[in-house]
Amino acid sequence: MESGFRKRSWISSRSSGERKALAQKIKLSTIADALGVSTATVSLALRDSPLVAGTTRDRIKEHARAIGYIYNRRAASLRTSRSGIVGVVVHDIMNPFFAEILRSIESELDRSRQTFILSNHYDQLEKQRTFIDTLLQLGADGVIMSPAIGTPPEDIIMAEENGLPAVLIARTVEGADVPVFRGDDAYGTGLATNHLISLGHKRIAMIGGTDQTSTGRDRYQGYVNAMETAGLEVRPSWRIAGPRTKQAGFEAAGQFLALKDKPTAACCWNDLVAIGLMNGIARAGLVPGIDISVTGYDDLEEAAIATPALTTVWNGQREVGRRAASALLDKLNGQMVRPSQELIKPELHVRQSTGKPVERA
Amino acid sequence: MESGFRKRSWISSRSSGERKALAQKIKLSTIADALGVSTATVSLALRDSPLVAGTTRDRIKEHARAIGYIYNRRAASLRTSRSGIVGVVVHDIMNPFFAEILRSIESELDRSRQTFILSNHYDQLEKQRTFIDTLLQLGADGVIMSPAIGTPPEDIIMAEENGLPAVLIARTVEGADVPVFRGDDAYGTGLATNHLISLGHKRIAMIGGTDQTSTGRDRYQGYVNAMETAGLEVRPSWRIAGPRTKQAGFEAAGQFLALKDKPTAACCWNDLVAIGLMNGIARAGLVPGIDISVTGYDDLEEAAIATPALTTVWNGQREVGRRAASALLDKLNGQMVRPSQELIKPELHVRQSTGKPVERA
Repeated sequence: MESGFRKRSWISSRSSGERKALAQKIKLSTIADALGVSTATVSLALRDSPLVAGTTRDRIKEHARAIGYIYNRRAASLRTSRSGIVGVVVHDIMNPFFAEILRSIESELDRSRQTFILSNHYDQLEKQRTFIDTLLQLGADGVIMSPAIGTPPEDIIMAEENGLPAVLIARTVEGADVPVFRGDDAYGTGLATNHLISLGHKRIAMIGGTDQTSTGRDRYQGYVNAMETAGLEVRPSWRIAGPRTKQAGFEAAGQFLALKDKPTAACCWNDLVAIGLMNGIARAGLVPGIDISVTGYDDLEEAAIATPALTTVWNGQREVGRRAASALLDKLNGQMVRPSQELIKPELHVRQSTGKPVERA
Repeated sequence: MESGFRKRSWISSRSSGERKALAQKIKLSTIADALGVSTATVSLALRDSPLVAGTTRDRIKEHARAIGYIYNRRAASLRTSRSGIVGVVVHDIMNPFFAEILRSIESELDRSRQTFILSNHYDQLEKQRTFIDTLLQLGADGVIMSPAIGTPPEDIIMAEENGLPAVLIARTVEGADVPVFRGDDAYGTGLATNHLISLGHKRIAMIGGTDQTSTGRDRYQGYVNAMETAGLEVRPSWRIAGPRTKQAGFEAAGQFLALKDKPTAACCWNDLVAIGLMNGIARAGLVPGIDISVTGYDDLEEAAIATPALTTVWNGQREVGRRAASALLDKLNGQMVRPSQELIKPELHVRQSTGKPVERA
């Protein structure tokens, strides 16, 4: 007890800077001597070099940790070309759509021992720029981004020209010559709309999304194309633009139920809007899936367990994340990566939230 | 067009390292001369120093961006004591409970122009250690963590002694002498259980959570205390430990409905489990809030719009995030921060998912 107390008070009497300096004083040779390996091996192991066998690397890092050695990556990254850091910036990690993409990016980067730094831009260009500046200042290796609404191609070109290769997910930026990984949105809402049409629905509303993003324009176009191909009326008032969250979908239920000529079905922007809308419909005393048919988009984990289980469009978010991370790693390893758009083909998953139309009084 | 094309091909013929070097060649004095300020002012402005007025700082940064100057924070951070980076590590950002905490940490750090680096540990000690090592290697200023199950106090002490001050959220680690911000969990489940008891429920199950975390132990204890105080039986088989997600709550519905002597109410570990359980109960043909009463925990944004609207315990996650970030910033600014546990008092929010008990056949 006594000596433990002394040690702590001794340490806390020193500033954080001094403590760091003390930790740095342990030399590579101390570790090398203790384990009977070369200092070069120690240095490589601490930098996670594949040139050192996994077991040796673990033994060295374990010993280094035990004696309190902290490898200073900042100093080292000035000498080597890679910092081991990748930035990821999306609209909002609270959106499970992005969370599912991030999870697959993470597991891909983990395998290559890259650290990822995350930020939300909430569709504010300034916030996105601050983050890119931070990445440039840190000497990050690259960035994966779902670009904020209104991102000019120059912002991405500037990052690339300063040695920060970029890969886009979910949204395109016209004029930026980088790889893009996203679902085929127009095809996807086409699948959902055609499913509703095939059940006999003629008056179908589109709830949520915005024309300010490529995704928004494409999803609306897919719905319009399907309606027109089937010879059905596309009424502007049947489009409730805006909602992208559960809360907003819930709040849109009143407006939807009050629409003129009562649409019998709603093709929703995403699963969050669809689940919120279904909750709002239920709160109004109607039964979603029976009185009103509802489709979602994304096939989030919770779509299958919603009440009723949601008919939705699988959007391949894990696939998007995996391919984007892997393309960035290829770029970092000097491989040629084509700056083209890769569209992942969505699939319709039919569940209980859609059925034959019922005329409301 | 012609010259634009030339510029691009000229740039792409150089390696990323060379491009970085070119960007660095623009001198501070170039910016200073152009704007008629001193190089010291430029240097301070690019480091976001509060010594430079906001408008001047913005003008300098805008000009620096326009001419392609990239401030190298890595090199600078070797000269100054702060890197401007704070690490945050939690179990899983896909959990909206943590997402809501993160959002308030983010807005607090934003105001102090700190960048935050995020990581999930998925309750794997090794993943948490790798992240802390990364923070130490980057020279991060501090870490906010919801510690992984089984975190030994030594891991936190080691970080602190190496100049990485830590603040804990949501969970405690016995023996680690750092500030902890969390809700008063035992008090919270006590509120929920007493609410069910006051409605007339006598057979109440506890669904979800684990004894491996302080939160898990405290929430279960709050339920047990309330039951015992009311003279009600605490039956071990009425505790379904484990579930913490919507999916797991959904899957637990079958087990819950099959329990001996049919409990009439479920006190759930969190809102996710409660919403999943309600969906599972509905899928089995019963009406949650009428046939079975269900309480949640956290008062996530979606609790109010669930079907039925969820009676739950507000857990102050935004408050936890705000106070934790602010305590860390105080620590970084050299202010004295007491290494004590700060318990946020939860509140009961009664909605439609609880009612008088109904005996099932």
